[in-house]
Amino acid sequence: MPESVKVIVLGTGQMGSAIARLLLQKSGISLVGVFGRRAHRAGMDAGDAIGLKRSLYMPVSVDLDRLLDETQPDVAIQATCSAISDAVTEINTLVQHNVNVISIAEEMAYAKESSKPLAEQMHWQAVNQGVSVLGTGVNPGFMMDYLAIVLTGVCAEVQQISITRSNDLSPYGPTVLKSQGIGLTKEAFQAGLTDGTITGHVGFKQSIHMIANTVGWDIDEIQEQRKPIVSTLIRETEFVKVSPGQVAGCDHSAKAFVNGKVVITLNHPQQIHPHLENVQTGDSIEIIGKPTVRLSGNPEVPGGQATASLAVNSIPRVLTAKPGLHCMADMAPPAAMLADVRRFLPEQLIEVRHGQDY
Amino acid sequence: MPESVKVIVLGTGQMGSAIARLLLQKSGISLVGVFGRRAHRAGMDAGDAIGLKRSLYMPVSVDLDRLLDETQPDVAIQATCSAISDAVTEINTLVQHNVNVISIAEEMAYAKESSKPLAEQMHWQAVNQGVSVLGTGVNPGFMMDYLAIVLTGVCAEVQQISITRSNDLSPYGPTVLKSQGIGLTKEAFQAGLTDGTITGHVGFKQSIHMIANTVGWDIDEIQEQRKPIVSTLIRETEFVKVSPGQVAGCDHSAKAFVNGKVVITLNHPQQIHPHLENVQTGDSIEIIGKPTVRLSGNPEVPGGQATASLAVNSIPRVLTAKPGLHCMADMAPPAAMLADVRRFLPEQLIEVRHGQDY
Repeated sequence: MPESVKVIVLGTGQMGSAIARLLLQKSGISLVGVFGRRAHRAGMDAGDAIGLKRSLYMPVSVDLDRLLDETQPDVAIQATCSAISDAVTEINTLVQHNVNVISIAEEMAYAKESSKPLAEQMHWQAVNQGVSVLGTGVNPGFMMDYLAIVLTGVCAEVQQISITRSNDLSPYGPTVLKSQGIGLTKEAFQAGLTDGTITGHVGFKQSIHMIANTVGWDIDEIQEQRKPIVSTLIRETEFVKVSPGQVAGCDHSAKAFVNGKVVITLNHPQQIHPHLENVQTGDSIEIIGKPTVRLSGNPEVPGGQATASLAVNSIPRVLTAKPGLHCMADMAPPAAMLADVRRFLPEQLIEVRHGQDY
Repeated sequence: MPESVKVIVLGTGQMGSAIARLLLQKSGISLVGVFGRRAHRAGMDAGDAIGLKRSLYMPVSVDLDRLLDETQPDVAIQATCSAISDAVTEINTLVQHNVNVISIAEEMAYAKESSKPLAEQMHWQAVNQGVSVLGTGVNPGFMMDYLAIVLTGVCAEVQQISITRSNDLSPYGPTVLKSQGIGLTKEAFQAGLTDGTITGHVGFKQSIHMIANTVGWDIDEIQEQRKPIVSTLIRETEFVKVSPGQVAGCDHSAKAFVNGKVVITLNHPQQIHPHLENVQTGDSIEIIGKPTVRLSGNPEVPGGQATASLAVNSIPRVLTAKPGLHCMADMAPPAAMLADVRRFLPEQLIEVRHGQDY
């Protein structure tokens, strides 16, 4: 059996840490490095940084070039940011070092819509270096786009796709809660929308264009709406307290049009402790077509666990994909990886990789 | 714009006809030939054979070699049979003529489990000829395997997968009704199980191994059970009349084991007019793991429409796949094709195809 697949993680926040911990549980994978952006984390034990109860005898690196030279990874998982403009420098560095990249940056889920020039540059650089780059995550990347795309496979015609994801934000930290305006008055929520401090969900544009482009629709217009979810009672988490009349979440929705007709509707109400007001969380997909298909489940697929799993389960996919920039819809599905990762790699790939000079 | 993608259909039964009619509605696709196995159909107008109300000015061919020489198709859709041993001769002929193949034969959904020698021979022949061969269909191929595989992508761990598909057989013809024992007494149903005339569903073995192999489980044992669904009242279709106490359907289920533990359960009760006894038809998938995922929908995704759509929607996928034998789980998803098929093909592929000598 050849040696393991070497992986590094970029990011030591909530998601980067969860991904690193999951990698440590997987057979055939070696976590060979952890990169953090924050200079004060340099040299900190990676075990501490990712919330393990034990040392990994590996310092967090803040020098990506040096980490890559020292560890020569096969794959890097990026969990440092949301925007493609913010992700691109790290991705370029990784690709230059012949490292395959899995990014959970929301705007990387459908990179060519987020920034065509950056996506094209990433694509050709990856092609030249013989590696692949994939954007993934629970949303965008799976529950409000990819899964619906998969389901349209049984349809001869489709008139309209509607997807609803209602979820509980109680486990999330202050950054997410602020971006949804939680704990504000209705007036402050409106002001936050106006000045851009309240964003709601990031990813509708990516989800809509991933669906539309995969089935062959040319979207003319997208209309988005963000409404405050006002609480009628006290709701409280570790990071925020919401009084009656204050905002407990953001009901963010989008409609996409072809020739003046709505073809995609995305509804994504997110709030803390929805069950306190008898709100049932869940995911549902409705495809009106021939045939009409409806699937739903309660509660919602939990976002953090799902994103960490998707990132790790994508490892054999990026190792076997055609070099270049990919989205979920042009790859084989990233199934759960319940055996040694090398089982999912063709033998010649393992030989080629280990025939290389490292 | 280059010329269209040329497609032939093998089979003029219910499924072949539905596929051919759907192909005629799709832009960028030319239906250039229809092959039928039954000699008495030779020369019959293909429009009549597939149930169109108009002539196609194209005779049904019963000589596959000659049809291929005359029409030089890019893709063939095979809807002539269920067993791989029955499908292989036509597939070999197609591949020898450099034609990409989409087969809805149940045993082709996971060919390497149906017959390893035949699957290997098909694979290497397809590799040598530079074409791809895909098995697909609603079940096996989608609702009781592929969709669950896709959903496991969000899971870090999976203990067990349970899938139920409860459906209405009322639209089906005498061959299907007989294979389920519909209209028999309980005693005749038992005798039919014993002598093999009652098969229930064909495809559990393929579905189980597609799931297991994709996530990395080694199945030790599969146990199947077929129970009669006995009617308490009169149920009637064009082809069968069931009296109270007679069999209205077959409740076929399977369990797959790893190390003595059940890891996959498939439940597939099929009957005519289930609503008469207040049976709600539908599809449901439950993945017990981290996280647990449950999705369900009512009524069931209709089998005939779904299989025809999957076959046609797979056309751009087989044209762009790596040469060889494929199953659904190693391909990009066959999304609904709602625009000209050439939109889904890379330009270089269209150029290469049309640079060939035909």
